[in-house]
Amino acid sequence: MRIETLSEGEIGRQASGRLSVGTRGQGFIEITDAVADWVSGTGIRSGLLTIFCRHTSASLLIQENADPDVRRDLLTAFDRLAPRTAAYVHTTEGPDDMPAHIRTVLSGVSLSIPVAESRMTLGTWQGIYLAEHRDRPHRRDLIFHLIGA
Amino acid sequence: MRIETLSEGEIGRQASGRLSVGTRGQGFIEITDAVADWVSGTGIRSGLLTIFCRHTSASLLIQENADPDVRRDLLTAFDRLAPRTAAYVHTTEGPDDMPAHIRTVLSGVSLSIPVAESRMTLGTWQGIYLAEHRDRPHRRDLIFHLIGA
Amino acid sequence: MRIETLSEGEIGRQASGRLSVGTRGQGFIEITDAVADWVSGTGIRSGLLTIFCRHTSASLLIQENADPDVRRDLLTAFDRLAPRTAAYVHTTEGPDDMPAHIRTVLSGVSLSIPVAESRMTLGTWQGIYLAEHRDRPHRRDLIFHLIGA
Repeated sequence: MRIETLSEGEIGRQASGRLSVGTRGQGFIEITDAVADWVSGTGIRSGLLTIFCRHTSASLLIQENADPDVRRDLLTAFDRLAPRTAAYVHTTEGPDDMPAHIRTVLSGVSLSIPVAESRMTLGTWQGIYLAEHRDRPHRRDLIFHLIGA
Repeated sequence: MRIETLSEGEIGRQASGRLSVGTRGQGFIEITDAVADWVSGTGIRSGLLTIFCRHTSASLLIQENADPDVRRDLLTAFDRLAPRTAAYVHTTEGPDDMPAHIRTVLSGVSLSIPVAESRMTLGTWQGIYLAEHRDRPHRRDLIFHLIGA
Repeated sequence: MRIETLSEGEIGRQASGRLSVGTRGQGFIEITDAVADWVSGTGIRSGLLTIFCRHTSASLLIQENADPDVRRDLLTAFDRLAPRTAAYVHTTEGPDDMPAHIRTVLSGVSLSIPVAESRMTLGTWQGIYLAEHRDRPHRRDLIFHLIGA
């Protein structure tokens, strides 16, 4: 088992960006195309992209972008892993709030993706999704950071 | 859906740091202020911060820093997701060890947070926590890496 | 609580690599040694390593590398967290596919690990694993990115 070196070089640049997404309640919003456009627009051809979600009840994840049923089953899975009906202490913000916090911890708020030839090195079936875990629509802020050359 | 570029510039510096935290058994220890102080002290104004937990039964997570009941419910959720009472094969280190490993996998050991104007780009309610998943007190080592300009 | 600075310095280099791993169905494949070799071979002595898994039914995780029973119990835990027998809508790719997607979301596809003195700053018991969540053997692509000096 031996890792093959693809490229070596100098670096010296960074760029940062922001995306504000209006959600429509629980569900997934694909942001892959917007991220791809921004990455190629920075002029940084190779490096490291980081995406960060500034919330505690919305998260970031990479999943299959082909069959929408995958996201439907993921929602059901989150419901089972962090059910609304559990006996929570923190209930002041509604019955959907604490499950949303737990689902955010399980799926995470930061993603790191290497960039090569001005493109993210995503696999064929990988899409990047903002996951809204609250019932009501929210405005969600994502921060992007790209470092490289 | 279009990402707005916030900044572009050169980079050329990095800094690394270490924090040793004494835990008091299962629970969350907030490290946000210590991290914020270190980031601003490095003199690196914009870039990328990475935090890494060097353990397999303690993890790092970002969650609400307002109501302490959120952390209480998170502990209960971890108990349900990785119960102490399941039929584990690996029991030599005690009944709390294998659940601690599973909870660590579910919450993760690395965090990546963009930095702008000498501050982490955390959202209003986001706090950074070291999660101790073992029953007894432990000494936990965290490594910090900041790259930027 | 105060973070101790370990090092400060300039950066200017990056390297990227690729590893193709043939899996033999559900289970964990340790890649720690291959990663350590590649990192030291790049000549970059301090910086940040990122590992990215280009799949939606295989993931990356850090866990104990001592007792193999830990990985056995982890498999059982994944089976309980995302059971094959749940009522999934997405079933066209077989009964192991949707659970594999859920397990990938729960464990994640990217890892960030600081590097110092040409070595990853892993803890004593930490090993890096590719987790195959499908029943049948697959070829899995991992991308590596190292930035530093």
